[in-house]
Amino acid sequence: MSTYIAPLRDMRFVMTELAELGELSSLPGYEEATPELAEAVLEEAARLATEVLAPLNKPGDEQGARLTPDGVVAADGFPAAYGQFVAGGWSGLSGDPEFGGQGLPELLQAATVEMWNSSNMAFALCPLLTAGATEALRQHGSDELKARYLPKMVSGEWTGTMNLTEPQAGSDLAAVRTKAVPDGDHYRISGQKIFITWGDHDMTDNVIHLVLARTPDAPEGVRGISLFLVPKFLLNADGSPGSRNDVHCVSLEHKLGIHASPTCVMSFGDQGEAIGYLVGQENKGLAHMFTMMNEARQKVGIQGLAIAERAYQQAREYAKERVQGRLASSKSGGAVAIIHHPDVRRMLMTMKSQIEAMRAFAYVMAADMDRAHRDPDAGERARRQVRVDLLIPVLKAWCTELGVEIASTGVQVHGGMGYIEETGACQFLRDARIAPIYEGTTGIQAADLAGRKLASDKGAGMADLIAEIREAALELTRSTDTLVASVGAALADGVQALEDATAWMLQALATQPDAALASSVDYLMLTGYVCGGWQMGRAALIASGKNAANEDPDFHRTKLATARFYTDKILPKANALLKAIRSGASGGSSLPIEQF
Amino acid sequence: MSTYIAPLRDMRFVMTELAELGELSSLPGYEEATPELAEAVLEEAARLATEVLAPLNKPGDEQGARLTPDGVVAADGFPAAYGQFVAGGWSGLSGDPEFGGQGLPELLQAATVEMWNSSNMAFALCPLLTAGATEALRQHGSDELKARYLPKMVSGEWTGTMNLTEPQAGSDLAAVRTKAVPDGDHYRISGQKIFITWGDHDMTDNVIHLVLARTPDAPEGVRGISLFLVPKFLLNADGSPGSRNDVHCVSLEHKLGIHASPTCVMSFGDQGEAIGYLVGQENKGLAHMFTMMNEARQKVGIQGLAIAERAYQQAREYAKERVQGRLASSKSGGAVAIIHHPDVRRMLMTMKSQIEAMRAFAYVMAADMDRAHRDPDAGERARRQVRVDLLIPVLKAWCTELGVEIASTGVQVHGGMGYIEETGACQFLRDARIAPIYEGTTGIQAADLAGRKLASDKGAGMADLIAEIREAALELTRSTDTLVASVGAALADGVQALEDATAWMLQALATQPDAALASSVDYLMLTGYVCGGWQMGRAALIASGKNAANEDPDFHRTKLATARFYTDKILPKANALLKAIRSGASGGSSLPIEQF
Repeated sequence: MSTYIAPLRDMRFVMTELAELGELSSLPGYEEATPELAEAVLEEAARLATEVLAPLNKPGDEQGARLTPDGVVAADGFPAAYGQFVAGGWSGLSGDPEFGGQGLPELLQAATVEMWNSSNMAFALCPLLTAGATEALRQHGSDELKARYLPKMVSGEWTGTMNLTEPQAGSDLAAVRTKAVPDGDHYRISGQKIFITWGDHDMTDNVIHLVLARTPDAPEGVRGISLFLVPKFLLNADGSPGSRNDVHCVSLEHKLGIHASPTCVMSFGDQGEAIGYLVGQENKGLAHMFTMMNEARQKVGIQGLAIAERAYQQAREYAKERVQGRLASSKSGGAVAIIHHPDVRRMLMTMKSQIEAMRAFAYVMAADMDRAHRDPDAGERARRQVRVDLLIPVLKAWCTELGVEIASTGVQVHGGMGYIEETGACQFLRDARIAPIYEGTTGIQAADLAGRKLASDKGAGMADLIAEIREAALELTRSTDTLVASVGAALADGVQALEDATAWMLQALATQPDAALASSVDYLMLTGYVCGGWQMGRAALIASGKNAANEDPDFHRTKLATARFYTDKILPKANALLKAIRSGASGGSSLPIEQF
Repeated sequence: MSTYIAPLRDMRFVMTELAELGELSSLPGYEEATPELAEAVLEEAARLATEVLAPLNKPGDEQGARLTPDGVVAADGFPAAYGQFVAGGWSGLSGDPEFGGQGLPELLQAATVEMWNSSNMAFALCPLLTAGATEALRQHGSDELKARYLPKMVSGEWTGTMNLTEPQAGSDLAAVRTKAVPDGDHYRISGQKIFITWGDHDMTDNVIHLVLARTPDAPEGVRGISLFLVPKFLLNADGSPGSRNDVHCVSLEHKLGIHASPTCVMSFGDQGEAIGYLVGQENKGLAHMFTMMNEARQKVGIQGLAIAERAYQQAREYAKERVQGRLASSKSGGAVAIIHHPDVRRMLMTMKSQIEAMRAFAYVMAADMDRAHRDPDAGERARRQVRVDLLIPVLKAWCTELGVEIASTGVQVHGGMGYIEETGACQFLRDARIAPIYEGTTGIQAADLAGRKLASDKGAGMADLIAEIREAALELTRSTDTLVASVGAALADGVQALEDATAWMLQALATQPDAALASSVDYLMLTGYVCGGWQMGRAALIASGKNAANEDPDFHRTKLATARFYTDKILPKANALLKAIRSGASGGSSLPIEQF
């Protein structure tokens, strides 16, 4: 089992060169986010990840969280580690300064979120959910609720949860049945929620649940859902946790992975009265909930990247150590470390190049979020927001799908040892497998991209993206560096596929929505691969210049190699996906159910 | 958790129409293999699989095999089920009649192997390994060894193992260190083997180990390895098991999946003297071992198909039952079973169409094995053998890689429930994950395909295959059924990619072997996809005729739909792979190790 080492060199490159941290720190409100501060943040986060969180990852997987008569008990070492996390100010890194946050850019937050999830995904889920709940409360809560709850949630002293799913209401939240009956200044909540991540634990002295429920006269469907804040402990007048509220974890799921992250069945009002407070407007709960959902989706996308990075590091170290077989190209030589074998190298490069593409995609999007927030120009803010809204489902689904693939490749690099739990490679695959499911499955993300984002502006936001990628490809093809020019040609080919696919999707959305939905996941994946290729192309151009100037040539030549590998071996999937997209539902839509 | 139901209708179609069982039963020695007998075999096997093996699958996963002071104890119910398996004559279905086997075609065996592995992969591994050991002994053992051991192994009363791997000798068997010292009529074996599937258990009264070891004066490397038979119990003069031999399981691995299949560390000669008998010629062990390896590789390929089928059935039943969300195409309607959602349908069709392609590919190859064995024409026998040798690595690796992908898609169809172990979908993914690793990883299969099979005849066998596929494509394009013609056009495109890729590979093998090896897995996968498309094309042409004649139109229209889906959505990967292949090692080969 290897140690996690934060990939700081690549993180710095992406933050500085691709996400343009220098420019970002010139925006009003981000003046403190200088490259020097960013460097300090990266190094401190890396230390916590490597020294505190990573060593708990495997023991946490083996022990898991446990349900006791007193509630859920986190795996050994987790409460202390969480204490260090909070003490270090990591919870409020990009939080609102009005409530005690540091107000740093999402870009910095993205890098730290990657580290928490690489080192210990089960642990990292707790602050991930807290951030979503915090943001929903900040945007939609009353001043009184915010004053009472937000400072402790921003600091991480209290954690937050998202209580959405019920047995009959998963992807379709219209089916939510949990009830909220008004009773003076509060509501009485009753019902059961499932799949509640970190729904209960012993790491903090309060847990703040954000809960979707229906008031008695609410209309049916999604227009009758409201959002409530239900604390584990009701607050005393001085704001300290007081009497126990009637919200309890009644069982834990036995899952494939993320064993140290308790997945709770939560019962509200079963033993008395669960008191909740309305967040935002009655019957607007779904819209309010999307605030936390978007926040969480962005971070789950980064989770896909993070678990892939961790799986890669493990596979790389094994490949360097494991001696087996001789090279075909030098039959006289002795046995070599398997990293020298061309097929092992192919596997590692497949992992590495896609990880770099995902990282660049994710960090650039985080910087777009910052610009959507802080750019002084309203038009630019709006444009960035459109871009972020368009690509969040792509980030979430593309990165998590690749996370599973890459973790599986990581197992493969190990050969037979990969299948043995002791080795550690399996855990990354088991953990990674949840990410394309929770916070909206890949199918839900694709429906969001196609049916909502693409349809809502008739493809204008996508056309803007395509134009920007096309321009980048053109610039690359003009490079005198032939490698960069060939990357540009491949990118031009990829963005053409994206444009053709977009035209097909827009047409299909208007005339045959089932065909569009049948092609939506392929369309999302195509968008992801092309966006990844775009960032790898941008990286190659910059790396070529730096290499020519003899700046850190080892790193920049490697970046050129991964960019080339990505465009040679990964990006060709774009045209295969275009063909698949254009076939719509193909033979699938007409088949009677009994013929499946 | 759904029940396993053998897909008899598709099995029959593939066996009869594509693998041409009728013609097969006209070959000398296969006269008994009439369609009527085949039907009886299928139905009896289906009954055993559904009623006996499938119910033990999940309990076996949960309990696992256990190591006790008396040796390995199989999971509850396994010994009794194995007894039924032996009593039914399933072990010797295609076994040599001289030693009590039924001598039926491999084609029938293939269908039963699929059923055993779909219903209980951990269980099925035991007869899978026995068959390999049996075949190696039959081909290479002395008459005396054969007379004493084979009848009990053919019947399954004793099981067999393959003891190859040692800690330092995995893919590279040249590094084997286990010793064999001659001592009169036998050898004394000493050493330790790892990853020994069903290396010990309490299901039978003997276990026959085939073990690779070195004699004292053996040359280094693969030319100094010999094959030995080491029984758990030495035989009395009357052939009954007598005194305990010194071969013991000293520990069991804790694995991701196949928990009910004990993966043993085996120790030879640690507590006294392990007696073994030479099989075949001294120092020819590796060649003899390949006999059992090829046998096992074919069956592991079928395992990939089988676990995919099981995952598909589970996902399909869930999709029929789970009600969630409304259809975009009819907003007024109520909630529907998720099988009606276009993206769920896409997932199911992706599973189903590839499963049908794998089944056709696997069964047609089994029939080729039979023809290589029994065709009266020596030239035809040789041609079929070349085809089998060429495609066994493709069957093994392509089907097992798809097995993992499809089992993962099966989890995804379930949404959040898929991640809960109780649902059962995860087990198929956990079980499937070993198949691309054991019996030679995907990388090893690809090296075999490219470096050995393709190189050995300069592509003649592959050219023969390509010509046959091209001819089939041409026939399809001439069909008046436009669907069939379009499938033919897609197949023609696919086989062109295979031809172009083959030309590139042959050139690369001669001039830049590392580049060829870096592209070898992509080349293997391309071959698999095109072979699958070939069989789906053949199936479509036949189905079109049957449908026109109004024979079982529901089934045949479905076959047309899956063929179209496969060529629309899956086969386009061929051109993406061709591009990747042509890029060789791309940026990967020149990268210094420290830059990974």
